[in-house]
Amino acid sequence: MSDDDNERRLSLSEIQLLATNVLTANGVSAAQADAVARNVTAAEADECRSHGVYRLLGYVRAVANGKADGRAVPKLVQETPAILRVDAGRGFAPLANEVGRPALIAAAQSLGIAVLAINHCYHNSAMWADLEPLAEAGLVSIGMTAGQRTVAPHGGSKPIFGTNPFAFGWPRPDGNPFVFDFATSAVARGEIELHQRAGKSIPLGWAIDADGQPTIDPALGLAGALLPFGGHKGTALALMVELLAGPMIGDLTSQESFAEDEGLGSPPLGGELIIAFDPQRFLGAGFASNMARAETLFASITNQDGVRLAGDRRLEARARSASEGVMVPIRLLEELDAARSSGIA
Amino acid sequence: MSDDDNERRLSLSEIQLLATNVLTANGVSAAQADAVARNVTAAEADECRSHGVYRLLGYVRAVANGKADGRAVPKLVQETPAILRVDAGRGFAPLANEVGRPALIAAAQSLGIAVLAINHCYHNSAMWADLEPLAEAGLVSIGMTAGQRTVAPHGGSKPIFGTNPFAFGWPRPDGNPFVFDFATSAVARGEIELHQRAGKSIPLGWAIDADGQPTIDPALGLAGALLPFGGHKGTALALMVELLAGPMIGDLTSQESFAEDEGLGSPPLGGELIIAFDPQRFLGAGFASNMARAETLFASITNQDGVRLAGDRRLEARARSASEGVMVPIRLLEELDAARSSGIA
Repeated sequence: MSDDDNERRLSLSEIQLLATNVLTANGVSAAQADAVARNVTAAEADECRSHGVYRLLGYVRAVANGKADGRAVPKLVQETPAILRVDAGRGFAPLANEVGRPALIAAAQSLGIAVLAINHCYHNSAMWADLEPLAEAGLVSIGMTAGQRTVAPHGGSKPIFGTNPFAFGWPRPDGNPFVFDFATSAVARGEIELHQRAGKSIPLGWAIDADGQPTIDPALGLAGALLPFGGHKGTALALMVELLAGPMIGDLTSQESFAEDEGLGSPPLGGELIIAFDPQRFLGAGFASNMARAETLFASITNQDGVRLAGDRRLEARARSASEGVMVPIRLLEELDAARSSGIA
Repeated sequence: MSDDDNERRLSLSEIQLLATNVLTANGVSAAQADAVARNVTAAEADECRSHGVYRLLGYVRAVANGKADGRAVPKLVQETPAILRVDAGRGFAPLANEVGRPALIAAAQSLGIAVLAINHCYHNSAMWADLEPLAEAGLVSIGMTAGQRTVAPHGGSKPIFGTNPFAFGWPRPDGNPFVFDFATSAVARGEIELHQRAGKSIPLGWAIDADGQPTIDPALGLAGALLPFGGHKGTALALMVELLAGPMIGDLTSQESFAEDEGLGSPPLGGELIIAFDPQRFLGAGFASNMARAETLFASITNQDGVRLAGDRRLEARARSASEGVMVPIRLLEELDAARSSGIA
């Protein structure tokens, strides 16, 4: 059977409509559904399938089991001229970001730096999508969120951290912004699940078993813990994410988020922190020349054979998807159709 | 010959005096010398020898060759309520930090977040020492600085980045703050030099040769490029440091810093960026309970066999050094004595 028999081609507007329908049929408000659907569609367009329509099942499950509030109305408070706070009310991250973003942009433009702290939010979405609109508004940004505990510290045996993604955005004068977004774990948990389904072993360095021993068996790794990328340095970064997007903004650590879920397998509940900088406020009359200096830096990277700028693959996929649409596994479409018509128990 | 024959024990006040004397004898002002000496002494106390008195030779050389201004008077300007800018005037980082720090603390306490941008500074010092006083003032902080180009992007062949350290500080209610500080390169350049002197090969993954091929020969690695830690993720982080501490604040990239040095081997000239957060402004009445939540997180790491918190070794060394002093190689002391009495040509 060829790939084509297993997959169906959908346009991006069909993806957006599918996502919206699956969510609203399961009690998600139009505002929450639209924001999630935009995120999911952007992920599909960029061929980040792990954050695409597949994620809708997790969103719907979290609403069905009563953990997430699909009708939450995020509340924005400006706590200081530089701190914007959004209480997501156990709703989803995309709408909370949309509610906080205009005030974050205004504060960063006024002061040069500002921060958006999002609390009580289910973050199940691609985080680069939270930063890209800031870059399009001319801002530099850093974003992070904790997760549910699945990652052990380097040298340790017990999971403590979530996959704790860290993201960065930089506006580029001509063309698309530079945005990277990486998990501080060596790989995503889904990557190990894919190996398990395919009956393949995993490389050493991805996971440890429940006794803390290195393993190449995906089942043992899933029962144990993921490892951070980059040894003790990746561990340090995962801990920083955990502290900044958790206790510093009054929200859960990954261990607390895991406990809060009571084994239901919902997306992670917790905080998200976004720092925005306005380079125009830092550079003044030197703005154009310094942004050009950054372009020289980018060119010195992309000029090297075998090197790609983080995010470049996504942008290439995006260009293709706009005209050609994207492929979605038929089995997944059937699951989504079932979720749309009869809901998730 | 035992180690004791090669080394002499000095008290921390002797280290401080030695450092001050070496610097002032070579035309460095009392203010610059005191600040550098405090940094160097702190590094020795924490047994970070690579940032200890050894570094004085680099400081003195940079002044002797006319690149650094040992008498520079850093100038502080408050550009917005949230942006503090220090023009270091081609002086050294420690004094520039001391000049900017009180205003940074005040701005962060007022707004919840503020940033210190230091320009035109020779950063030859331990960066954790720039963040520790912020943590002692109750602030969370992130610090970074670019370097001179020695590190190739993952998959590439030519050096672009400096070792581009990234640091983070977190105040702890009882005891010492948590501060980590790591190079975004796989190792420090000095580590490869030590292997070369010892006639040892280096592990794969540390460096590539001038043709971009992996090498275990330290000489070929030094002639080629260091590699980033953590593959493409470490590369992304190195690039972020480069952009934020360089073009965003109107300062040099690592390539520009290298060109500016004209092969003289000075410490790197460029920018440093420090972001400070006041958790009290984020947490209000929830301050104590959330800082306690962070302590639970720390405990869940240190409770695991085989895991250390980043920076713990430094703090243990510090406790020892306060009473016992530190060991310094006699040959280095002779070099420093020569630099003090007759200067560096």
